[in-house]
Amino acid sequence: ATRPPPPPPQVIGIVGFGNFGQFLAATFVKQGHKVIGMSRGDYSAAATELGASYTRDAAVLVAAKPQVVIFCTSIMSLAMVLKAFPLAALADTLVVDVLSVKVHAAALLTELLPAAADILCTHPMFGPESGRAGWGGLPFVYDRLRVRDGPRCDRFLAVWAAEGCRMVEMSVSTHDAYAASTQFITHTTGRLLAGLGVGGTPINTKGYESLLGVVDTTIKDSFDLYYGLYKYNPMARAQLDRLEASFAAIRSRLDACEAAEADVAA
Amino acid sequence: ATRPPPPPPQVIGIVGFGNFGQFLAATFVKQGHKVIGMSRGDYSAAATELGASYTRDAAVLVAAKPQVVIFCTSIMSLAMVLKAFPLAALADTLVVDVLSVKVHAAALLTELLPAAADILCTHPMFGPESGRAGWGGLPFVYDRLRVRDGPRCDRFLAVWAAEGCRMVEMSVSTHDAYAASTQFITHTTGRLLAGLGVGGTPINTKGYESLLGVVDTTIKDSFDLYYGLYKYNPMARAQLDRLEASFAAIRSRLDACEAAEADVAA
Ligand SMILES: NC(=O)c1ccc[n+]([C@@H]2O[C@H](COP(=O)([O-])OP(=O)(O)OC[C@H]3O[C@@H](n4cnc5c(N)ncnc54)[C@H](OP(=O)(O)O)[C@@H]3O)[C@@H](O)[C@H]2O)c1
Ligand SMILES: NC(=O)c1ccc[n+]([C@@H]2O[C@H](COP(=O)([O-])OP(=O)(O)OC[C@H]3O[C@@H](n4cnc5c(N)ncnc54)[C@H](OP(=O)(O)O)[C@@H]3O)[C@@H](O)[C@H]2O)c1
Repeated sequence: ATRPPPPPPQVIGIVGFGNFGQFLAATFVKQGHKVIGMSRGDYSAAATELGASYTRDAAVLVAAKPQVVIFCTSIMSLAMVLKAFPLAALADTLVVDVLSVKVHAAALLTELLPAAADILCTHPMFGPESGRAGWGGLPFVYDRLRVRDGPRCDRFLAVWAAEGCRMVEMSVSTHDAYAASTQFITHTTGRLLAGLGVGGTPINTKGYESLLGVVDTTIKDSFDLYYGLYKYNPMARAQLDRLEASFAAIRSRLDACEAAEADVAA
Repeated sequence: ATRPPPPPPQVIGIVGFGNFGQFLAATFVKQGHKVIGMSRGDYSAAATELGASYTRDAAVLVAAKPQVVIFCTSIMSLAMVLKAFPLAALADTLVVDVLSVKVHAAALLTELLPAAADILCTHPMFGPESGRAGWGGLPFVYDRLRVRDGPRCDRFLAVWAAEGCRMVEMSVSTHDAYAASTQFITHTTGRLLAGLGVGGTPINTKGYESLLGVVDTTIKDSFDLYYGLYKYNPMARAQLDRLEASFAAIRSRLDACEAAEADVAA
């Protein structure tokens, strides 16, 4: 597939400059955008290495007049981070979030941002592991929750399209329903198997090798992220319950086979 | 890797001509061996299509004087099948089994076969799905349990080596320990997820796609096979218990996070 060209240079603020924030910054810088990271920790050295600037002071970030500010904090901390931020300064800004749960993020942004700020809710469905070799073909989900400046939003979406992402426009609630049955289940499976202490043996099957790949990817994400997927996706708890029920069903089918075999033997 | 040439043509009997027995027959015939299948069902048409012959009568099979007879029945039925077979006729034969559990198969063969029969216990760690595109690089596990005619056994092992299998010599008990923590866990995971009714969504992640692959492969195997892995691998039950414990540990870590968050909010 041919990719559209990168959009004109933009000034992009990233609030929450952890694992995922830095991963995004690298590609934004590569495309020629000016990136300003902000977090609690001191990531100056990491930012310099990425070609981004860094501050722990929100006033410095807003003074740079970013066209786009991306909230990239842990799911759990978004409310707190928004409440501590000088949100009034974002009135003429496109505010974006990349949280892996979308109904929750959309509700917070709608409630707390000034009415004049535009809101784009997104979920890049990849990370430092799965997107290591590039973002081509990987799903980028977005919902234009409140967009008045269409061209500015389009320019930001063009950043992802230029990397070859598969652009999927989808409501935040549809996203959460799908994500609970796919991404949350994947993380749960990875953590379930990690708890067994799985590893290589001389006789790994192909299927087992795929599972090891899933374990590797999911355990590199923080437990905060996993907890956020569970707690702040309204559909996740039901999926966990269904997984438990599925386990119980297997157990009882095995028990039934055992009883039937014992009957035949008796 | 360069593959050794196929060995000289052999007459190979396959007892249990189901899913896996037919899969093996196809490759044996391709290499130029004469294959005679035997089962309860009527697989004459399938055998003809594969270029093998077929009988439901063990006397016909032994009358063909196969150098090798492979038991390829379900794990559960091996004891019964052996007891119904004219085993005395196998005195001058290499008897092979391909069951996915090896301690159990080795015990039965040792107990029931005439002392003059050679025994090779094997586990080809692939099947019609994972071996669809060929057997190159896939593990073939074997234990020369009781081999007096070395060259005959080597000729049979050469069938697998010629297909490019990774030849892994391993005791039956080491095999079962590894297989419980890899293959049984893989089948369990596949069935666990199948129980959720998983499927494609427009926003599948890479990790989720790998899980779907595992589901597809494992549910094509019979439940008898899965039950056999559970019941007749002495290490499997403990693995299922560990999986259940891992699930409970995740639940309680999530509950603890929830309680901690509620504390902060209060
Ligand atoms: N990792 C991925 O593959 C991926 C993919 C798509 C979307 N996402 C989303 O991206 C966001 C960030 O994910 P992540 O992988 O970097 O890990 P994370 O553990 O979910 O979030 C880490 C970030 O949250 C900040 N943070 C955590 N607690 C905070 C608090 N109490 N106050 C202020 N900031 C706080 C951290 O700041 P400090 O570093 O300063 O502590 C850090 O920047 C999440 O919402 C996640 O759902 C992640
Ligand atoms: N499928 C794989 O990928 C794979 C890989 C490696 C090893 N194996 C091993 O290969 C063996 C065969 O596996 P499979 O996939 O074909 O499925 P399976 O369900 O384990 O076994 C089916 C075979 O067992 C025979 N059988 C079942 N119950 C029987 C009974 N009561 N009396 C006589 N025969 C009976 C069937 O004969 P009828 O068809 O005549 O009913 C059929 O030939 C198993 O031991 C399995 O562990 C399988």
